[in-house]
Amino acid sequence: MFSERIYNFSAGPSVLPLPVLEQAAAEMANYRGSGMSVMEMSHRSKMYLSIFEETKADLKRILQVPDTHEVLFMQGGATAQFAAVPMNIIGRTGKADYAVTGNFSNAAMKEAKKYGEVRVAASSEDKNHTYIPSQEQLSISPDASYFYYCANNTVYGTEWKYVPETGGVPIVCDMSSNILSKPVDVSKYGIIFAGAQKNMGPAGVTVVIIDKSLAGQELPYTPKIMSYKTMIENDSMPNTPPCYSIYILGLVLKWLDQQGGVEGMEKIKAERAKILYDFLDESQLFKGCAEKEARSDMNVTFRTTSPELDDKFVKEAAKAGFENLKGHRSVGGMRASLYNAMPVEGVKALVEFMKDFEVRNK
Amino acid sequence: MFSERIYNFSAGPSVLPLPVLEQAAAEMANYRGSGMSVMEMSHRSKMYLSIFEETKADLKRILQVPDTHEVLFMQGGATAQFAAVPMNIIGRTGKADYAVTGNFSNAAMKEAKKYGEVRVAASSEDKNHTYIPSQEQLSISPDASYFYYCANNTVYGTEWKYVPETGGVPIVCDMSSNILSKPVDVSKYGIIFAGAQKNMGPAGVTVVIIDKSLAGQELPYTPKIMSYKTMIENDSMPNTPPCYSIYILGLVLKWLDQQGGVEGMEKIKAERAKILYDFLDESQLFKGCAEKEARSDMNVTFRTTSPELDDKFVKEAAKAGFENLKGHRSVGGMRASLYNAMPVEGVKALVEFMKDFEVRNK
Repeated sequence: MFSERIYNFSAGPSVLPLPVLEQAAAEMANYRGSGMSVMEMSHRSKMYLSIFEETKADLKRILQVPDTHEVLFMQGGATAQFAAVPMNIIGRTGKADYAVTGNFSNAAMKEAKKYGEVRVAASSEDKNHTYIPSQEQLSISPDASYFYYCANNTVYGTEWKYVPETGGVPIVCDMSSNILSKPVDVSKYGIIFAGAQKNMGPAGVTVVIIDKSLAGQELPYTPKIMSYKTMIENDSMPNTPPCYSIYILGLVLKWLDQQGGVEGMEKIKAERAKILYDFLDESQLFKGCAEKEARSDMNVTFRTTSPELDDKFVKEAAKAGFENLKGHRSVGGMRASLYNAMPVEGVKALVEFMKDFEVRNK
Repeated sequence: MFSERIYNFSAGPSVLPLPVLEQAAAEMANYRGSGMSVMEMSHRSKMYLSIFEETKADLKRILQVPDTHEVLFMQGGATAQFAAVPMNIIGRTGKADYAVTGNFSNAAMKEAKKYGEVRVAASSEDKNHTYIPSQEQLSISPDASYFYYCANNTVYGTEWKYVPETGGVPIVCDMSSNILSKPVDVSKYGIIFAGAQKNMGPAGVTVVIIDKSLAGQELPYTPKIMSYKTMIENDSMPNTPPCYSIYILGLVLKWLDQQGGVEGMEKIKAERAKILYDFLDESQLFKGCAEKEARSDMNVTFRTTSPELDDKFVKEAAKAGFENLKGHRSVGGMRASLYNAMPVEGVKALVEFMKDFEVRNK
């Protein structure tokens, strides 16, 4: 039992800013004199629409989304987009290229095979996904309807440090685990999507940013709620959206503004990651899993000298208030997810705990 | 600005029990000594899984779901199910029969046409959906993969008072707007589904109750997150579920237990509806829209003698703290949605306001 909040290193759903939670709690039963909760508002009501439109406008401003692109709020998480992307845009040539750098890009490719001819543009499987392929290692066909990659691999702790050159092939990118952690040139992308539950808000809402010129060529059996065209035409409301999750996302964006936006987040994330990676580089007990050049600032994967000691570390850390440090079951070891809402103090405290653990387990 | 809560007659998202909102607010930043919010919990964590499994068990108990059926928590609202149902189960014969008694059954039928041959088993369109077809008016083909109907029509204020006999054809029922308002014999249904945002919780989670023998024959292009088989095999978690919405649903179920479960709800709903319908039957100004035998206990549609007076009523009511009484744009007039969380006092107060309005507008 913790009377205070703990440090939550979960890979997702994950830590949210405390001021956001406190505001949500204060507004829960009576939102700003409306006499009702945001959860109880008709999605067609003026009050809810003002929350919705402000959230959308804030996101467009913060990510500098150009007018060529539209911001959508959808449901079903990234996994729904694994199907929606090919259903909507593979029809142009019937083919798509995928870079496979971890579990989620692999799952996306598997799903896409239901809808067209899918080719591997690059894979890091040869080294257990500990690295990110270089531009030279990418094989992108000119007749691909799109090139797909996952910007940050939560399971393996790697992150793309460049935007691939594709020779005009539209880029589709899953940014679920690093969106809003740094500035992004949205104009380079055909589609960006991200489940909210890592850097943006609670599970249940997925942000999709799409070049509007890509919409309108979906396969005939595309479900209505997965049609980008339908979503664009109905401002994400062909049916009831996940209203409360969008409201929380809106509060997170206000908080983000106070931290200096994505530029502020980029500085903080570099600081957070450096503290932990510097320690891993000098530790005799703990070792980072990913290759240095590919290391993610969002998910830091590491291990001790044995699975038994890993287990011991995870258990002792949880008792000390450092939660969810166990690595993904397909990799083992540990993983510390350092999303936007993780304070620098949390990483400093974790490193102090790791130092102490190392002394006690020499 | 209301310092107190108002009476919210929204058709959905809609009123939730105040004790549920108060508990959610109290637990927001630190759920029962966990040091974190439910929104921040990994969906694979023991703590979240206990919330999830308890909610599922409560729902199964309250609705007396037999072991032949599974309870799923999905995303995308009823509209996602409009596609998921045919994608999963129309393959058996390629055909399905739909009863069209309002906007949502019509939308479901339209969506199903993408996936097979769809026939109209009955339609109430001839009288602007003011009635529900009788058993004798239903034309159900023995070779239909399923028969589909919407148990309660929010837009028109009508409700099915019987479960159709289909001669062995599996029944699929959209219960979005009357689930948990009365006991249901789940064993009679192949699939029941319901968006949560009317009688169960916030928008963003959809309950699906499915006869497990119907799963496993989906069309090859069914998205993973829409496959009932995948959902059953992964206990609704092939990916991150809408965790917080499920938690709120769980709190609503605890509240429901305290009200006497679905039997208790059935008594209260009859009392609520009677107060309003009795007044409509005797009023000289207000008239109910639906035929008496088909009247819904959940959504009461009514009008005055003119659209102008309807507008005046809706505006004055809102100022007095009776919100969201405007009828659906396709019908006009007024609609008072009396979902589970609407207290009897709310309906009594509304009728008093209506009586006063009638006196003032003779």
